[in-house]
Amino acid sequence: MTCRSAKSAPVRVIVLLLLAAGASAAASAPAPPRAEGILDLLPVPASVTIREGRFRVDQGLTIARPDAAGPKGGPKDRAFRAAARFMTRLAGRTGLFLDQDFLASQSAAAAEGGIRYSFGRPGRLLPKEDESYTLAVEPAGIVLEAGTDIGVLRGFETLLQLLSADEKGYYFPCVLVTDRPRFTWRGLLIDVGRHFHPVDVIKRNLDAMAAVKMNVLHFHLTEDQGFRVESKVFPGLHELGSDGMFFTQAQIRDIIEYADDRGIRVMPEFDIPGHSTSWFVAYPEFASAPGPYGIERKFGIFGPAFDPSNERIYPFFDAFFKEMAGLFPDPYLHIGGDEVEGHQWDANPAIQAFKTKHGIADNNALQAYFNGRLLKILTKHGKKMVGWDEIFQPGLPKDIVIQSWRGPQSLVDAARQGFQGILSNGYYIDLCQPAEAHYLNDPVPADSPLDEGQRALILGGEATMWSELVTPETIDSRIWPRTAAIAERFWSAASVRNVEDMYRRLGPVSAGLEELGLLHIKNVEMILRRLAGRPGIKPLKVLAEAVEPLEDYQRHGQARYTSLSPFTRFVDACPPESPAARRFGTLVDRFLAGKDRAAGQEIRAVLVRWKDNHAPVLALLAASPALREIEPLSLNLARACGSGLEALACLEKGEGQPAAWAEERARLLAEAAKPAAHAELVVVKAIGRLVEACAGGPK
Amino acid sequence: MTCRSAKSAPVRVIVLLLLAAGASAAASAPAPPRAEGILDLLPVPASVTIREGRFRVDQGLTIARPDAAGPKGGPKDRAFRAAARFMTRLAGRTGLFLDQDFLASQSAAAAEGGIRYSFGRPGRLLPKEDESYTLAVEPAGIVLEAGTDIGVLRGFETLLQLLSADEKGYYFPCVLVTDRPRFTWRGLLIDVGRHFHPVDVIKRNLDAMAAVKMNVLHFHLTEDQGFRVESKVFPGLHELGSDGMFFTQAQIRDIIEYADDRGIRVMPEFDIPGHSTSWFVAYPEFASAPGPYGIERKFGIFGPAFDPSNERIYPFFDAFFKEMAGLFPDPYLHIGGDEVEGHQWDANPAIQAFKTKHGIADNNALQAYFNGRLLKILTKHGKKMVGWDEIFQPGLPKDIVIQSWRGPQSLVDAARQGFQGILSNGYYIDLCQPAEAHYLNDPVPADSPLDEGQRALILGGEATMWSELVTPETIDSRIWPRTAAIAERFWSAASVRNVEDMYRRLGPVSAGLEELGLLHIKNVEMILRRLAGRPGIKPLKVLAEAVEPLEDYQRHGQARYTSLSPFTRFVDACPPESPAARRFGTLVDRFLAGKDRAAGQEIRAVLVRWKDNHAPVLALLAASPALREIEPLSLNLARACGSGLEALACLEKGEGQPAAWAEERARLLAEAAKPAAHAELVVVKAIGRLVEACAGGPK
Repeated sequence: MTCRSAKSAPVRVIVLLLLAAGASAAASAPAPPRAEGILDLLPVPASVTIREGRFRVDQGLTIARPDAAGPKGGPKDRAFRAAARFMTRLAGRTGLFLDQDFLASQSAAAAEGGIRYSFGRPGRLLPKEDESYTLAVEPAGIVLEAGTDIGVLRGFETLLQLLSADEKGYYFPCVLVTDRPRFTWRGLLIDVGRHFHPVDVIKRNLDAMAAVKMNVLHFHLTEDQGFRVESKVFPGLHELGSDGMFFTQAQIRDIIEYADDRGIRVMPEFDIPGHSTSWFVAYPEFASAPGPYGIERKFGIFGPAFDPSNERIYPFFDAFFKEMAGLFPDPYLHIGGDEVEGHQWDANPAIQAFKTKHGIADNNALQAYFNGRLLKILTKHGKKMVGWDEIFQPGLPKDIVIQSWRGPQSLVDAARQGFQGILSNGYYIDLCQPAEAHYLNDPVPADSPLDEGQRALILGGEATMWSELVTPETIDSRIWPRTAAIAERFWSAASVRNVEDMYRRLGPVSAGLEELGLLHIKNVEMILRRLAGRPGIKPLKVLAEAVEPLEDYQRHGQARYTSLSPFTRFVDACPPESPAARRFGTLVDRFLAGKDRAAGQEIRAVLVRWKDNHAPVLALLAASPALREIEPLSLNLARACGSGLEALACLEKGEGQPAAWAEERARLLAEAAKPAAHAELVVVKAIGRLVEACAGGPK
Repeated sequence: MTCRSAKSAPVRVIVLLLLAAGASAAASAPAPPRAEGILDLLPVPASVTIREGRFRVDQGLTIARPDAAGPKGGPKDRAFRAAARFMTRLAGRTGLFLDQDFLASQSAAAAEGGIRYSFGRPGRLLPKEDESYTLAVEPAGIVLEAGTDIGVLRGFETLLQLLSADEKGYYFPCVLVTDRPRFTWRGLLIDVGRHFHPVDVIKRNLDAMAAVKMNVLHFHLTEDQGFRVESKVFPGLHELGSDGMFFTQAQIRDIIEYADDRGIRVMPEFDIPGHSTSWFVAYPEFASAPGPYGIERKFGIFGPAFDPSNERIYPFFDAFFKEMAGLFPDPYLHIGGDEVEGHQWDANPAIQAFKTKHGIADNNALQAYFNGRLLKILTKHGKKMVGWDEIFQPGLPKDIVIQSWRGPQSLVDAARQGFQGILSNGYYIDLCQPAEAHYLNDPVPADSPLDEGQRALILGGEATMWSELVTPETIDSRIWPRTAAIAERFWSAASVRNVEDMYRRLGPVSAGLEELGLLHIKNVEMILRRLAGRPGIKPLKVLAEAVEPLEDYQRHGQARYTSLSPFTRFVDACPPESPAARRFGTLVDRFLAGKDRAAGQEIRAVLVRWKDNHAPVLALLAASPALREIEPLSLNLARACGSGLEALACLEKGEGQPAAWAEERARLLAEAAKPAAHAELVVVKAIGRLVEACAGGPK
């Protein structure tokens, strides 16, 4: 670090009151926050003041930890390791050979200048822990202060996002950031049950979570399709229920330690009494219908469920959760509880007799009985219970947490009765919806009927990566970068809702995730290369600009997917949200709104590129049977672009088209909008707007 | 699978006698083997007979394992898991939704048709184990037979490489392959000491090794820069010697199991008595000079060495190797032994006195004494000793193995005295040399002075990935695809030496490695994206076509590299061997040899692309200080291409150029050939050949 200007820069000018209610704006078209065009911070901090000057980054940069002798962190604490990772990433981005040996003792590092960090105490990985920090960048030095070392971690991520360059080299712009999260529970659920995702997948996603200040990995460990954690007490569970694809306990500990180092809790979920086929491969006697059972390959809601009337399951769960409570240090343990349809219960006379005998009215009550028994077991082993909406019932203790997948109303209902909740409805990233949809979904919307005290019971939310349709090769592209938008929703002020600015900042964040090993960008071309069977995949990249995977659950209607199906087709290479398609839609809207001549030129160039792409695509299909399914996509894109070019020419001349022309084009576009190869041409809608605009005869 | 033609196809036509001595050819310009242009198999099998017909691959494809009840493999043996992986990879490449649930019981799979495999007995992971197999592809079915399940694994890799496509879909061409390796020790050394490479790096490289039929992971676990394995007996070793970057014993067991599943031995190396600084951080008292010691950050040969005269080190090694012998099941344990310069020994009076007292003449003899003590310890714990050249001395038992890094002569010397050897000299893949250089380097060259019995003592060889200049981000591109050429050298017949055909097959093999998670292709652009700090890196990709990292040890002369340096610069994105540069050189040679008009056109197009690339590169540099070091490379490339275009024009007109012109261009090219940004413009030589060809006045 060298000082470019004076010791202390005068504070000035731009105070970004991003947290302030004054910046609140309608969801439809909010005013851009003042950070727009200035900083790329994501999530937006609670407060940012931009100052004069630049802190220069060069090979002399030093970083100094707090006094090793004191209680605030020895050489091997969490903050120290975070500082080391920060310096590695900084060196990686800048290519600088830093003089400092930052992993060894730093007593030699001068007390002045450079980067200094300090914190009050080691943070505990619990909800409501202090994650706040203050980051002051001045030309002469950078000071990062926090109440806990977890706050230090958050601050380092902000600092790295501030890295900038000019003609003289790299620098950090001088700022004062005061920051703290809006919600304390900012989670990502990874479903390793339906498809197994090994340690390296989990670790790189933990790194990505830390980069956007998320703090809970919700580890969905068991499903009909797989039991993914080693049990030493009941080894049949993982041995028979996983096809050999499970985490050993050593791997689980490794993951927890890795997460801890990044200030991330690991909450395990064992989904019972339904979603439990894989348990019954080893223990058919615990199911509500006779076995034998095999690992489920298909996806959906299945009948097998634990038999709550079978008294032998409770000692089993007692021993099992005792083991898991010892393995997972988090105070919360998730018991699932979703989608129990009760078919096995209804068909089992003994269970019906049990209900009658105990005055249990219906299956909901039977599940409540089951949950009550489980609650005692969890409590005995020191865990607080978390479950999906279905587990909620008034009699439960107030320290449980309800996770809503069905809608925000269940959280409202629970909060009104004093229960804590987290929101996942609206954050189903497996459904391949645009980031915008998740971004504008608020755990506590402005129109929430809750009072202030009740609102405080909404702890936050979780993005959910259900894994029916993802493998280790594709999961990153289904999580990132869209989940960064959700992370901002959980961290930043409710008033931070500018969609355009979110997308602007999503680009650099997405690029930054690559340095952590995320595969969301690079595997696109890898999958295309494999499909093509040879180099020269540009036509496929061009086609992919206009294509997205089918949204919601539509893709399941296209084929009978199983956990053994290949996820290596063109649709799997396409990210859930195409930046090029989004940009095209924006251009069209801008053009139609103001007849912007430059937008028209860019629209024409894009339409021509997509239209002329069909012949090169066809040439690739000859060598690749696996690609042949995309021929309709490519053909329809070319046809739609032809219509778009006709419309654009009309609009630029200020002419219209007869109704028959518009009808014919509308038919063509409707055809082009149909799913093909499990994907859809998402640019057809914008082309349709061009066509519509010049329909109806001369203007 | 469906049968396109009759039940049994008539054998016919092309018998590829690739193993036969009759196909032997001079290294300079060998005749292409008959497989050229027909099959992409790498390594080339011992014998391939191509037959009529195609085995069709469709969603009905089945695979049948041997009878589960018999001794030849139950449902969870190594071959079964390999079959499952084969089917997953096949589905991945073809996008086919296979009907068969191949991970569960296959008793339902019909005995006829489909793929059937069988083997005589489970293989043992020992040298000289039977790895042979026979693969018969007929239109009606595929039969893979082997003496051991390891042979089955090798056969599945061959079968996957046979996958082909035509207008009807995917198929396997009908062939009869009879195959066995030439050498029994086909290794890859990965140095995790100088840079740590975590479990996921090791696992994906094990997958890649298996894909090209390599069978030994030489795990270089300790170095001056790091002690990378957990010791429960002496925890100070990894706790103080690794910066927290080590393999837990659970991770080691995980790696060994993963390797075992792929028919790969894991041989650990603990490099002593030199290369051992990291051991002394915890145990300075075992060094030959007083401490304290810190983990070494620089690279080179360092003084610290164990003190052979210190009697206390032997009980230490006894306990340590007892622990490691229990952790690593391989019968061999490598003790390193290289590059002990003895400076600490010379400076220590007690050691000098010890030598005198015991009649030890010099430091070599002192190391031999040390090795003799170690040999007893290893023998006690059931391990055979392996070491680098330096450990060789006549009195050792005949079951040790000498690994030669200094040259083939040491193997010749050892073999003449009845010792086994493996060759690594010539396979130093860290030096960024072309694949060709390694490919033509034979463990037992045709002119070997050894007799047949002595030749049999040369067990094979190992590619060595020393890790001074690689990180987990770049290591794959330094290992692959070049190591596949070495794998062929170790597996295929000595007569398989056609360099052009090797390169032809290296392309598909390299592409195929991506499906196993290897990052050698995709990280090129990832590093360039990070450097550019924004999308639009095409100019960097174009420049990289003409650039390779400096070869041999030249890069160390460009900067003071340490284990903390960034390896994220332009040079780190450039693969060791540029296919585009190689092709350019071939084109130039073809043009100059025959004045091929088409080659001239392609040369011009390439030269123009490179020449016109400079302005776009400059535009990128403005935003990226880390990229600015490449400006001379880009400028020199543009200048050199200008000269090349002038020369090409002359040659095409049949004209020459005056001597002054040639001299001026030669000066310019000499300047362009100088290293910049730790890399070099490798296409300058070929441009120089164009310039030379038209020098000396009119033709």
